[in-house]
Amino acid sequence: MDARSCLFCRIVAGLDPAHIVHADDDVIAFLDTRPVFKGHTLVVPVRHVDTLVELPAELFVPLLGTVQRLAAAVRVAFGAQGSFVGSNNVVSQSVPHLHMHVVPRTKGDGLRGFFWPRQKYAGEHDMAEHAERLRRALAAA
Amino acid sequence: MDARSCLFCRIVAGLDPAHIVHADDDVIAFLDTRPVFKGHTLVVPVRHVDTLVELPAELFVPLLGTVQRLAAAVRVAFGAQGSFVGSNNVVSQSVPHLHMHVVPRTKGDGLRGFFWPRQKYAGEHDMAEHAERLRRALAAA
Repeated sequence: MDARSCLFCRIVAGLDPAHIVHADDDVIAFLDTRPVFKGHTLVVPVRHVDTLVELPAELFVPLLGTVQRLAAAVRVAFGAQGSFVGSNNVVSQSVPHLHMHVVPRTKGDGLRGFFWPRQKYAGEHDMAEHAERLRRALAAA
Repeated sequence: MDARSCLFCRIVAGLDPAHIVHADDDVIAFLDTRPVFKGHTLVVPVRHVDTLVELPAELFVPLLGTVQRLAAAVRVAFGAQGSFVGSNNVVSQSVPHLHMHVVPRTKGDGLRGFFWPRQKYAGEHDMAEHAERLRRALAAA
């Protein structure tokens, strides 16, 4: 990826501004400018990686370690009771450079009702069929 | 955690049924019974861990590796274009045993509009102040 064309590569390279809260050789973390809640942070591999699917295994520990430290830090920094940690891969992914969101959460913050809309399986057979499709895909990978 | 009192420990122990799609010594993965979209899978450490904050570092690679494989598998299994990967820690966490959601996503699936409600900082000063609080919390950890 050309650093000039990827917003997060530009932030990594110091070409675009960001409120950086952590940086090391493998990952950087900075505030999302349009937070779900204030203090919402993005953890990003320094190396350009499109999505979680392409993340090299040697970056699992640096990435998840920083996410874990931030999930603890938002409680201390903002008095949050918990956190939401997640990433959108391809669909709903605003910047095509892997970013793990860490969002401070507090009971009664209003996110619950619409955060996890749920569907129903048409029964045990439907569920078993979906599980089998996943097992086959995992086995073929 | 007493296996009898934690739903996911019961599933790990084979005491409660689940549509398991992957199992190894460190993690198991099974279908969520109330999916955001069908094929929605939960990846769970075999050992009881309350939230991501308490996850031992030696489980980072097994957990994230399985999440990554499932994020690829949902595209093959269900023709999804992408995935959502995430966990709720404490707040909105329905079962107090760490579980990473892997949800198949497709453009136009209707989730976008309300999935990431956003707020605004009151300006650069407000944002800088939140970043500084996070840096201090990380430094003190």
